[in-house]
Amino acid sequence: MQSDRPAARPVGRGAKVRTAVHAATLAELVEKGYAALTVENVAQRAGVHKTTVYRRWNDRESLLTDALAEHLAADIPIPDTGAIETDLRALAHGLVQSFASPTGQAVLAAMFTGAAHLPEIATARRRVFHDRLVRAEPVVTRAVERGELPAGTDPAELVRTLVAPIYLRLLMTAEPVDAAVADQTARVTLAAAQAGALRPASPSGRHGRG
Amino acid sequence: MQSDRPAARPVGRGAKVRTAVHAATLAELVEKGYAALTVENVAQRAGVHKTTVYRRWNDRESLLTDALAEHLAADIPIPDTGAIETDLRALAHGLVQSFASPTGQAVLAAMFTGAAHLPEIATARRRVFHDRLVRAEPVVTRAVERGELPAGTDPAELVRTLVAPIYLRLLMTAEPVDAAVADQTARVTLAAAQAGALRPASPSGRHGRG
Repeated sequence: MQSDRPAARPVGRGAKVRTAVHAATLAELVEKGYAALTVENVAQRAGVHKTTVYRRWNDRESLLTDALAEHLAADIPIPDTGAIETDLRALAHGLVQSFASPTGQAVLAAMFTGAAHLPEIATARRRVFHDRLVRAEPVVTRAVERGELPAGTDPAELVRTLVAPIYLRLLMTAEPVDAAVADQTARVTLAAAQAGALRPASPSGRHGRG
Repeated sequence: MQSDRPAARPVGRGAKVRTAVHAATLAELVEKGYAALTVENVAQRAGVHKTTVYRRWNDRESLLTDALAEHLAADIPIPDTGAIETDLRALAHGLVQSFASPTGQAVLAAMFTGAAHLPEIATARRRVFHDRLVRAEPVVTRAVERGELPAGTDPAELVRTLVAPIYLRLLMTAEPVDAAVADQTARVTLAAAQAGALRPASPSGRHGRG
């Protein structure tokens, strides 16, 4: 489950600064939290001048959202185990693990508590989620091709069903999120998909209470 | 789907003040939002003196969380339609509708954005969710008695599965939440429950990745 995809950007001085500043932002977030995050501290930790940071990011808010989005875009490997059951479990475990580390906890706290009031954060959340939906789509396509899931199974709906109980526990109920939770949501999602409940609803069903 | 349960508390002067202050708190929240909420404005709107408010609530935070918890505890009727399919749809529609009104929107914004940093809010969320789980339990018990769901179906897990995609859209993806979303999550939950995926996992399954 290690992610060792090649870097997408050419690695020059600019990319190095970007990586260093992102890493410093997350480290500051882990140590001090959102309220205490300053561009000055981030620059110092990254070993660059404050103006170098301000040349690339307008303010601490855009720096923060950029670092969060970058972190979240990379941190969940997309599995290809050859079977939908193990793929779904791996996806759910990957999400659970991404929130288990100190960085994951700090990112979660910033996105949903400390910085929840920033419009940029809402945009970052949507973008991250959309990226993940797109990246996970092949998991469903392959399962349909293998005949494991009904044709027409909606990848976006499947991913929503899989991850929703994890976010519910993290954001609403503050219940523990562990391997058992990942297994359980994978089990529910597989059962619903196999029963055809993750295909688009029939027109009559859709208009039932519209 | 009207909620006309009898009031649980004796209706005296104290209960009237409490109700009036709660209503004023929610109205202020709808009009001005969390950041602008003051005890002074709430008292004025409720037609009581500021000291009357402070006699019952320590500060605006405890007033707010109390008003939110009261609002959320009462706003979703528990259905008993005689069939699990329509009960699940009614439950999901009730939750969707509770967030559709201006008050629902203001409550959501306060709980998950404006006041998300308050420890009291996290406690209120957990309490509200637990209360709802307990209230919804008979829906599952009755379905098992009617033979519609497998024995051992876990009511808490069923409710989590039902509501999770609604909260995911509200809190993470900012996708629309409407009647179609309610129907879809009811469909997924029913399929998973009928397949036995909402019974506690077998010990071997639970320890698979623990």
